[in-house]
Amino acid sequence: MAQRHPDHPTDPVDPTDPVDPMDSTSPTGFASPTAGAVPAEALARYLRAQATEFLRALRLHRESGGGAGNGTRESDDAAYALRRSARRISGSLHTFRPLLEETWSEELRPELAWLSGTLAREHAYQARLERLLLALHRLSPQAAGSRGTDRDNLTVGAAKAGALLDRQLSLARTRAHSTALQALGSSRFHAVADKVAVLASDVPLVPAAVTADLTPLATAAEERLKDAVAALPLVTAGSPYNAEALVHGLSPDPSPHPQDAPWHQVRLLLRLHRYAREVVHGSDVPVDVRLLAAGQALDRHRDASEAAAAAAAAARTPRIAPATAYALGVLHADQRHEVEAARFAFQQSWQKQAVGAN
Amino acid sequence: MAQRHPDHPTDPVDPTDPVDPMDSTSPTGFASPTAGAVPAEALARYLRAQATEFLRALRLHRESGGGAGNGTRESDDAAYALRRSARRISGSLHTFRPLLEETWSEELRPELAWLSGTLAREHAYQARLERLLLALHRLSPQAAGSRGTDRDNLTVGAAKAGALLDRQLSLARTRAHSTALQALGSSRFHAVADKVAVLASDVPLVPAAVTADLTPLATAAEERLKDAVAALPLVTAGSPYNAEALVHGLSPDPSPHPQDAPWHQVRLLLRLHRYAREVVHGSDVPVDVRLLAAGQALDRHRDASEAAAAAAAAARTPRIAPATAYALGVLHADQRHEVEAARFAFQQSWQKQAVGAN
Repeated sequence: MAQRHPDHPTDPVDPTDPVDPMDSTSPTGFASPTAGAVPAEALARYLRAQATEFLRALRLHRESGGGAGNGTRESDDAAYALRRSARRISGSLHTFRPLLEETWSEELRPELAWLSGTLAREHAYQARLERLLLALHRLSPQAAGSRGTDRDNLTVGAAKAGALLDRQLSLARTRAHSTALQALGSSRFHAVADKVAVLASDVPLVPAAVTADLTPLATAAEERLKDAVAALPLVTAGSPYNAEALVHGLSPDPSPHPQDAPWHQVRLLLRLHRYAREVVHGSDVPVDVRLLAAGQALDRHRDASEAAAAAAAAARTPRIAPATAYALGVLHADQRHEVEAARFAFQQSWQKQAVGAN
Repeated sequence: MAQRHPDHPTDPVDPTDPVDPMDSTSPTGFASPTAGAVPAEALARYLRAQATEFLRALRLHRESGGGAGNGTRESDDAAYALRRSARRISGSLHTFRPLLEETWSEELRPELAWLSGTLAREHAYQARLERLLLALHRLSPQAAGSRGTDRDNLTVGAAKAGALLDRQLSLARTRAHSTALQALGSSRFHAVADKVAVLASDVPLVPAAVTADLTPLATAAEERLKDAVAALPLVTAGSPYNAEALVHGLSPDPSPHPQDAPWHQVRLLLRLHRYAREVVHGSDVPVDVRLLAAGQALDRHRDASEAAAAAAAAARTPRIAPATAYALGVLHADQRHEVEAARFAFQQSWQKQAVGAN
């Protein structure tokens, strides 16, 4: 089942397409199979397995009540498994698209992205709230969760900031939950599920795939990752306390921070590379701990970046007290500090990788 | 003149006594001079030289108009030279106190601390304001110095925060300037100056000093430094992005941060060690670049710590706008981040020192 790379459990899918679909420079993979070549049948097997996983998760989700309330443990797990296989199918369709029936593939991919993005949002808001409340607790243990009377202004500010974030992110989460429920009941979703059900038994490979080798396409995915990493400011990131992440932290519209985009992009390319490894190596793929560490650093980068943006957004709420705004400012900077720390962690793990592996 | 260790120009003196004056465990230095021993005459020479420097700086200060306005370049330089020699005399009286006439020494030392502390304050407020405005400029280039209309809330907040800090710290600086001027005209100051004038020709050594060696007392000062450094959380400080400096950053009364005190203490002990080196090695003392780097890291630590406290204090100004408070929160966290960075820099330079020297 090639499930030895557990995803970060709070992993929402970015619905943007990480790679230019018009990119015609990628290898076609139509070379004759040679010794060591990986046949297209490996791709078909992987897609069938992921489609089966998808259907199993969907059944579990329905049996668990489908989150009629605000997400039981079972329905959460099922939704996570749905996203997980949807991302893998979608990613594989992208990386190996010259081997798959084009119209079918081009139709299914955005639908899977829509689905995993929709399902991810509820969890993302919950995780963001938990991250911010944990940070507030670190900054002001006294304020934790309560509202506070007769206490210092700053503590009150921290408590009020926590209550404000709780209100805003809980509301967003509830809305995301409703949206996800609606999506799962929609005809759009049923069309996706039907397509995935067909995929579980019948993978529409192009005729030329019979003689194709998967390796060049998987290598191309790895090259796209390496190129994107090479374009990151890794020298700066590897120098601790470079104070880059907070640069322009008070400029207009700091959400999203433009400097974060290339890192988010690398996160998506790293994921595509991991899925391609799963396809090529099958369930025997060994866990690459350094790749895992790099991916976790980028997850942390994304989470901290979005938490910082949420704190900044909360600070724009009209009529909040100055002490609340102050606490949100400290919290914003704290999370941008986390963004910088995550970049440093990525640089460290990537460097190890460059030296150790390959 | 042993002036090859220029102090950090923004160096205010902490008037607290860094070492327990009742500490009776320090070596007495009364051993007979042996080969390689440094005679007490070296101390007398150093004190005479520093006293002469003090008097020269005082004359320059008076000739420059003594800062009738808000500090000319000449009067600033002269005030700095005054503080510089006052600190060196005071520090040497402390480190080598068993060799000096006790009543005289115990009377002069607190007076010198009062003087250098009073003179340092004006410069410290100015430097703090510059540090904070520079940080604001990094966080929001658009806000720099102006007040801004028709712009984003955050930019306006940054500009207003800058204006508020400018107002508060300029006022504090002006008051410190007046206090320094009053101090320099006071009978208390004239009594200090008279004593230093005597010191320039006549150092009151105790009779036993004739046969004493300065080395054990200088070594004791170094040991006190090493012990204090050993008690610092250097393992944490050496791990980048440990997020320690902002812990409890929203707790009541974050100014001064209790966690900063041991670092401030090490800063003072490092200074005493440097002065003792100057006494023992005379003007031939080579610049120890690693000691210099460690000292600069601790200066930066102190400056960032006080700037962070100033931002927090400004945020408690009644009736400020939420956007202003938010900007001050970001600024506070940014400076606490600097505190953490300075600890990391200290750890790095100290580690090099432990490996390289001695």
